[in-house]
Amino acid sequence: MSSNLAVIEEVRVKECDEEEDEKKKKSNVDWQRATPSEHVPAHILTNLDRTNKPGTQDQGFQLAAAYVSDAQYARNIPFQTGENAIWCYHFYTKWVTKFPMYLFLVLDMALALVESPAIPGMEWPFWASMLVEFLCLVAFAGRLVHLSMFTERRMFWRDGKNICVVVAIIVTAIDMVVYLVLTEGHWNIRWSRVLRPVFAINFSESRQLRRAFCNIRRTLLGIISVFILFLFSIATFSLLALKLFGNQHLTTYHGSPYFDNYLNALFDLYVLVTTANSPDVMMPAYNKSSWYSLFFIVYIVVNTYLFMSIFLAVVYNGYRKHLKNEVRTSVFNKRRSMGCAFHALCEPLNEDMVMSQSTWLKLVSVVAPTMSEGHRMLLWQVSDEEHQGYIGKRVFTRLADLLNIEVVEQWRRPHPLEQCAPRAYNSRLSCLVRQAVRHRFFRYVFDVVIFVNAIFIAIDDTVMAIQKAEWVFLVLYLIEILLKLYTYEPRTFFLLSKFWNWFDTIIVVIALIYAIVVHSSSYSTEVLDFLFILRVLRLLRIVDNFYRLRIVIQTLINIAPTMATHAALIMVFYYSFAILGMELFYGKVQFFPTPSTPEEHMCGNPLLVGSEFVQRQYCKNNFNNIVSASVLLIQLTVVNQWHVLASGFVITSDISARLYFIVFHMIVVILLINIFIAFVLEAFILEYTLDRGKTESAIERKIQELGLGITMQELENKEEMLIENMEHSGNELERNENGQTAEKCIMFKISEKRYRTVNALLQRMFEQDLGDEPEEEVDAVPRQCTFDGIL
Amino acid sequence: MSSNLAVIEEVRVKECDEEEDEKKKKSNVDWQRATPSEHVPAHILTNLDRTNKPGTQDQGFQLAAAYVSDAQYARNIPFQTGENAIWCYHFYTKWVTKFPMYLFLVLDMALALVESPAIPGMEWPFWASMLVEFLCLVAFAGRLVHLSMFTERRMFWRDGKNICVVVAIIVTAIDMVVYLVLTEGHWNIRWSRVLRPVFAINFSESRQLRRAFCNIRRTLLGIISVFILFLFSIATFSLLALKLFGNQHLTTYHGSPYFDNYLNALFDLYVLVTTANSPDVMMPAYNKSSWYSLFFIVYIVVNTYLFMSIFLAVVYNGYRKHLKNEVRTSVFNKRRSMGCAFHALCEPLNEDMVMSQSTWLKLVSVVAPTMSEGHRMLLWQVSDEEHQGYIGKRVFTRLADLLNIEVVEQWRRPHPLEQCAPRAYNSRLSCLVRQAVRHRFFRYVFDVVIFVNAIFIAIDDTVMAIQKAEWVFLVLYLIEILLKLYTYEPRTFFLLSKFWNWFDTIIVVIALIYAIVVHSSSYSTEVLDFLFILRVLRLLRIVDNFYRLRIVIQTLINIAPTMATHAALIMVFYYSFAILGMELFYGKVQFFPTPSTPEEHMCGNPLLVGSEFVQRQYCKNNFNNIVSASVLLIQLTVVNQWHVLASGFVITSDISARLYFIVFHMIVVILLINIFIAFVLEAFILEYTLDRGKTESAIERKIQELGLGITMQELENKEEMLIENMEHSGNELERNENGQTAEKCIMFKISEKRYRTVNALLQRMFEQDLGDEPEEEVDAVPRQCTFDGIL
Repeated sequence: MSSNLAVIEEVRVKECDEEEDEKKKKSNVDWQRATPSEHVPAHILTNLDRTNKPGTQDQGFQLAAAYVSDAQYARNIPFQTGENAIWCYHFYTKWVTKFPMYLFLVLDMALALVESPAIPGMEWPFWASMLVEFLCLVAFAGRLVHLSMFTERRMFWRDGKNICVVVAIIVTAIDMVVYLVLTEGHWNIRWSRVLRPVFAINFSESRQLRRAFCNIRRTLLGIISVFILFLFSIATFSLLALKLFGNQHLTTYHGSPYFDNYLNALFDLYVLVTTANSPDVMMPAYNKSSWYSLFFIVYIVVNTYLFMSIFLAVVYNGYRKHLKNEVRTSVFNKRRSMGCAFHALCEPLNEDMVMSQSTWLKLVSVVAPTMSEGHRMLLWQVSDEEHQGYIGKRVFTRLADLLNIEVVEQWRRPHPLEQCAPRAYNSRLSCLVRQAVRHRFFRYVFDVVIFVNAIFIAIDDTVMAIQKAEWVFLVLYLIEILLKLYTYEPRTFFLLSKFWNWFDTIIVVIALIYAIVVHSSSYSTEVLDFLFILRVLRLLRIVDNFYRLRIVIQTLINIAPTMATHAALIMVFYYSFAILGMELFYGKVQFFPTPSTPEEHMCGNPLLVGSEFVQRQYCKNNFNNIVSASVLLIQLTVVNQWHVLASGFVITSDISARLYFIVFHMIVVILLINIFIAFVLEAFILEYTLDRGKTESAIERKIQELGLGITMQELENKEEMLIENMEHSGNELERNENGQTAEKCIMFKISEKRYRTVNALLQRMFEQDLGDEPEEEVDAVPRQCTFDGIL
Repeated sequence: MSSNLAVIEEVRVKECDEEEDEKKKKSNVDWQRATPSEHVPAHILTNLDRTNKPGTQDQGFQLAAAYVSDAQYARNIPFQTGENAIWCYHFYTKWVTKFPMYLFLVLDMALALVESPAIPGMEWPFWASMLVEFLCLVAFAGRLVHLSMFTERRMFWRDGKNICVVVAIIVTAIDMVVYLVLTEGHWNIRWSRVLRPVFAINFSESRQLRRAFCNIRRTLLGIISVFILFLFSIATFSLLALKLFGNQHLTTYHGSPYFDNYLNALFDLYVLVTTANSPDVMMPAYNKSSWYSLFFIVYIVVNTYLFMSIFLAVVYNGYRKHLKNEVRTSVFNKRRSMGCAFHALCEPLNEDMVMSQSTWLKLVSVVAPTMSEGHRMLLWQVSDEEHQGYIGKRVFTRLADLLNIEVVEQWRRPHPLEQCAPRAYNSRLSCLVRQAVRHRFFRYVFDVVIFVNAIFIAIDDTVMAIQKAEWVFLVLYLIEILLKLYTYEPRTFFLLSKFWNWFDTIIVVIALIYAIVVHSSSYSTEVLDFLFILRVLRLLRIVDNFYRLRIVIQTLINIAPTMATHAALIMVFYYSFAILGMELFYGKVQFFPTPSTPEEHMCGNPLLVGSEFVQRQYCKNNFNNIVSASVLLIQLTVVNQWHVLASGFVITSDISARLYFIVFHMIVVILLINIFIAFVLEAFILEYTLDRGKTESAIERKIQELGLGITMQELENKEEMLIENMEHSGNELERNENGQTAEKCIMFKISEKRYRTVNALLQRMFEQDLGDEPEEEVDAVPRQCTFDGIL
C-alpha cells in the first residue's frame, strides 16, 4: 500500500513542478537573499500587483487557496488542477458536504440502537432500519464518486482506503439482500454490521481517526515479539501450576476444583495477569502452605508488573516513533502544498520569485473568509518583518501555521447602564460597589460560600434548618450574579468562552425555579433533582483559583481534542465488539427489573443457578442491546471481575466464549489503553513542560511590538480592567484606522485554547526534532518516511 | 542540607587545588595539545617514571587509587588526605568491613521474623532478639565512628544521613530500654522497629537505595498539585453520588446500604479508582436505571484513566528530570575525583602534566588487583591511542569508565579426552559425533523433545503409558548432556556464566535420582516434586533460540540490577508498613488450618460473621507475623479485592483502619509502582533502542584493531568453534609474550552483562544529553545541580 501512495506523491510533485520550472534554479541561499534587499521602490510593488496571466487569476487563487487549506488542515488528497476539479475539490472540503457525511456515519452506527436486538421500546421494523442503512450506503457511495471526480482514476483505485470502503459497501449490500431473502426463515444474523466502523475509519473526513488506527496497526507489529514471550511465560507458569496444585485436591472458596486441567489453569493465570482474581486464586494454595505464595508472587511480578510495563514501554516507544515519522511526512506534505500554492501566485522580482502583499491578503481572504481585517494585517506584519511589501517562499510557507494559531481580538465596550444613566453608574457608591466586586476578596468570599454549601449538601438534608439554609445560599448566589452583571458588560459576561459564568447562571436559575416549585407544590422529579445536584460542581471554581492546579486542568483541556480522537478509536472497537457480542450472546442472559419467578432471579437462564454472576446481580450486564453491550464492554475494559462477567456467558453458551473475552482484553486493554496512556504521557509531559511553539512566539512578539498586545500575565492581573470580545463585526476596522484609539481599543492575544487542529499539537510535539529544515533537505526526507496512513 | 554539602564540595575542591596550582594555567586547548606531540624520546619516558617525591610515592598511589575507585563506584565521601585517613578510608571501602555491614543490616531487619509476634515456632525469648539488636546497633555505631575517623568533624555532623542514623540509634536504644523496663507490665509495643529501614537507606553502603529514595522524595513534591486535584475530584464526585443515590434506598448485593453517608461514599469511590469494586459498586444504581451508569463511566474515565495516566506522566517526567540532574552531578564528581587522582601522580612534560605508562599501570594494579595483565594492557592501549607512552588528564579521566566495562578473556583449551586418548578422540567417528552435536539441528531436535515433554506433562500423568514416557525423556536428556560433555571441554561447559548448562544438568540429575527413588520405593516428597516440575522451565531454552525474543530477555537482564534497587526500596516500605500493621492489627484475624469450632471458621473473631472476608477464606491474610503481613501487603499492592481485605480489619478494629490501607495504596501503588514503571519505561526503551555507549565502542574498536577480538556477531555464528573462559590464571601472560600464539589463544570480548554498576547504566541513559563536556564547563555545572542526595 505504501508503494502506490508513494506514486500518488510522485505525480503530485510532478504537477507542482510543471508550474515551477524556476524552482530548480533556487538554492537555500535564495531564501536568505530575498529578505535583506529592503526598500523596494513603490512602482515595482505596484507592478507586482498586476498579475501576468489575467485570465487565470481567479483560478490561480482558487488553486492556491486549495493548497493552503490542504496545508492548514494537513489534508493530502491528490486533486487534479483543472478548473472543474478544483471547484469539485473545494466543494468536497466544504462543510456543506462534510457535515452530511458525518451525519450519515453517525446514523449508520446509530442504527444498532433500533435494529433487532434493539433497545426495548425503540425497535423499528426491519425494513425501516434497512432503508436507512441503504440511504447511508448511497451517501457513502456518492461521496466516493465525488472524490473520484477530482482525482485521477489510477490514483483513486490505488488508494487502499477507497478499496476498503468499496468492499465494505458491496459486502454490506450483499448481506442486506441475503437477509431480506432469508429473513422469512428467521435467519437473524447480520455479520456485515461489524464492518460499519470501516466507514468511520476510512473516510478522509476522519483523518485523525485513521491516522490513530494506522499507528496502532504498526505499533502492533512491534509488540508481537513481547506478546509471544508473554504468552509463553503464561503457558509455562500454567504448566507449573498444574503440576504443583493439580493433584492436591484443593477447592476454591465456592467449591470448584482448583487447577484441575491445563486450559482452566491457563485461563485462571491469564485472569491473574489482569489481577481480577488476585487473592482468590492464590488462597487455596496459600492456606495449604505459605511457601506456595512464592509461586504467585513471582508470577505477578513477572507477568503483571514486568510484562505490563514492558508492553507500555514498547507501545510508547513504537507509538512515538511512528507518530514522529508521520508528523515528519505531514510537515513535508505541508511544505510542498505551500510551495505549490506559492508557485501558483508568485511573481518574479530581481531573479527571485516573491508574493506581493495584495496577492497575499487576497489569498488569505479566500482561504479564511471569516478572518477580520485586523487579524489578517497582523499576520501579514508577522510574515513581512522587514516591511518590504512582498515575501519569499520560505516565509510564505509559515502561513499554514499562522492560520492554525487562534488569535483573539478584544476591545472595550461600555456597560449598557453607563449608556443609559451615566451619572448614576459612575457615582461614588456605584464605583465603590464595582471595585468591591472586582476585588479578589469578592471571589474568595463566594468560594467560601460554595464550600460551606457543599458541606451542607454533604450533611443529611432532611433536617429542617438545613433546608432553610438552601434558601440563604440561593439568594447569595443570585446576588453574586446580579452584582457581576452590574459590574461587567452583560454581552462580555455571557461570552461563549466564559464557561463558568454560563454554568453559574444556569445552575442558579434552575435551582431557583426548582426551589420555588418544590416549595409551592412539594412536587419533585428525578431530572430536576439531578440538575440541582450539579450545584456541587461549582466547587470546581475553587480549583480554578490555584495556579498550579489550573495549569494541570489547562493542560488537560489542551490535549483534550487529541485525546478525543483516541477515545473515538476505542469506541469504534467497542462498536465492533458490541455487535459481535450481540450476535454471539443475544438472549443468553436476561434482566428483569423486578424478578418474581425463580428463573427470573437466575437472569432467566436456569444454567446460571448458584453462579457468582447471579449472586452479584450482574443480570443487566448482557448483550441484549447495544447500550447494555457497551456498558458491559466498559466494565470489561476496567478489567475488575471480568472473569465473573465472562463466566455468565461461558456457563450459558460454551467454554469457547472465553476466547471473545480474552481477545477483547488483549486488544482493548493491552493495546488500546496502553496507546491511550502512551499518548497522555507524551502529550501531558510536553504540554506541562514546554512553552509555546516558535510560530506562536513570533506572533506574540509582533503583537507586543505593535503595541496591540496583552500577555497572558497582564491579562490575569488586569482581568477586571479588560473586557474581552471575540465578535467579528465591521466596526473595529474604522477604529483601527483612527490610530491612537485603535491601539487602545483593539487588542490581540493568543488564545489559551491554542490548537485548532490535532495536527498542530502533534507537530509541536516533535518540533524540536524536526527543526527548521530548508526545503531542499525536506525533499530528501520521503525516502525514510512511509506514506502509508497519511492519506 | 544542600548548602552544607556544597561546603563539603568546596573543601574538597580546595584540597585538590593545593596539589595542582598549575591547573589554573591550563585551558581547554591544552588537552588537545598534549595529544599530537608524538614520539617522545625514550629517556624522557624513563625520566617520567622516576617520581619526583620518592618518599610519598606509595601514599600518592594510595590516594590516587582511592580517588579512582571513588570515581569508578560513584562514591562521594569527603575523606581527608592524610596517610592514616587514606588507609582508614581504604579499609572502609573494603569488603572486609562492608560485608559485615550488609550482614548486620539484614540481621537487624530479619529480627522481625523471631520477635514477638514471630512466625509460629520461630519465636525467640525477648532478651535474645534484643541482644542481637543491640549488637546491630553497636555495629552501626562502629561504622559511623569509622567514617568519622577519616572525615572532617565539621563535615561529618553536617551530613543529614549521619544525623539520621545517630538519631535512629538513640531512639532505638531508648525504646529498647523502655521496653525492658516496662515489659513486665506487658507493654508490648516497640514502635522504633519501624525505624529500621532508616539504617538500610542511610548507610552509604546502600547508595543506590538512597538515591532512589531521594528521587522519590523529590518526585513527590511534583505530584502534589495533581494529587490535590485528584482528591478534590473524588470528593466532588462523592458528593454527587451521595445526592444521586443516597436517598433511593438501594442496597448492594450483600444487603448493605448504598451510598448512605459521605465517608462511605468517599471510600467506595476511592476503591473504584483502583477498580477493585468495579462493576459491583455500580450495579444497584445501574439496575435501577441505565442512565446512572453514565455517572460511573464518567467517574472511571476521569479518575481511573485520566488521573492515573497523569500521575504516571508527572512521575515519569519528574523522575527523569531528577535522575538526569543527579547523574550530571555524579559525572561531575567522577571527573573531579579523576582530576584529583591525576594530579596526585602526574609529572611535568613540555609544559603539560602527563601520566606515564608505568605509573598508570601501577595505579590500575592498585585499584583493580584482580585484573589480568592482558586486560590492563588492553585498557592502556585504548587510552594511549597515539602510542606516546603517556597520557593527559582528559584521557586519564576515562579510566573510571574503562574499569566499569566488563571485558571477558577467553582462549582455547583442549578437551581432557583429547589429552588422554588423542587418537580415539580425533578419529573420524568421534569427529562426526562432535560435528553433529555442534550442528544447530542437534539443538532443534532437543527443543522439540522438550516441547513434546511439556505436552506430556500437561496431559494427566496418571496414565501408565505417560509415566513410562518419562523414562524415555530422562534417558534422552541424559544422552544430550553426555554428548555435550564429550564435545565441549567440561570446565568450559560448566562455567558460571553458562546458566543453561548448569540448569539442565542439575534438573536432569535430580530428576534421575527422583525417578529411581520413586520407582524403587514409591516414596514421594513435595520438595522433590517441585524440583521435578522445574523441568518445565527448560521450555525457556526454546525462547532463547529466537533473536527478537532473546533481545527482549537480554534487555530485561541488563536492567535487572537497577530494577532490583527499586524492588529493594519497595521492600523497605513494605517492612515499615508490615511492622506498623503488626502493631495495629495483631491478633485481630487468626488463621486455623483445620477450623473446627464456629469461631475458628470466622477467623477466630465473631465480629467477622457473614463478612465477605470470611466467605472468601481470607483468614490467612493477617498481620500476625512478618511473613503473613508481607504477603498481605503484596496482595494490597496488586490492588484487587483490597477493600475486602481492608474490611476484615475495619470490622475487627475500627473504621479508621481504612486510613492505613488508603495511605498504603497512595504511597505504594500510586507513587512507588508508578516510579517503578517509569524506570522500566525509561530503561527498557533505552536498552531496546540504543547501541552500546561510547567508551565501550572505543574498547571494542581497539580490541578489533589489535586482532584480539571477536564481535558478538562472530561469537553467535561461531559459538560452536569458540570456547569461552573467564579464569584469571597466570599462564595467559606467558602466552601473551609469544606473539602469534597469543593472538590466537587469548581473545577479549565485551561481556553482554555490560553494567558492573547501576551508575553506569544511569549514566548511559543520559550520555547523549551530557555530551563530552570539557572540564571547564563541568566545573560550572554545580551551580545548577543540587548536591542533596548524592552523598
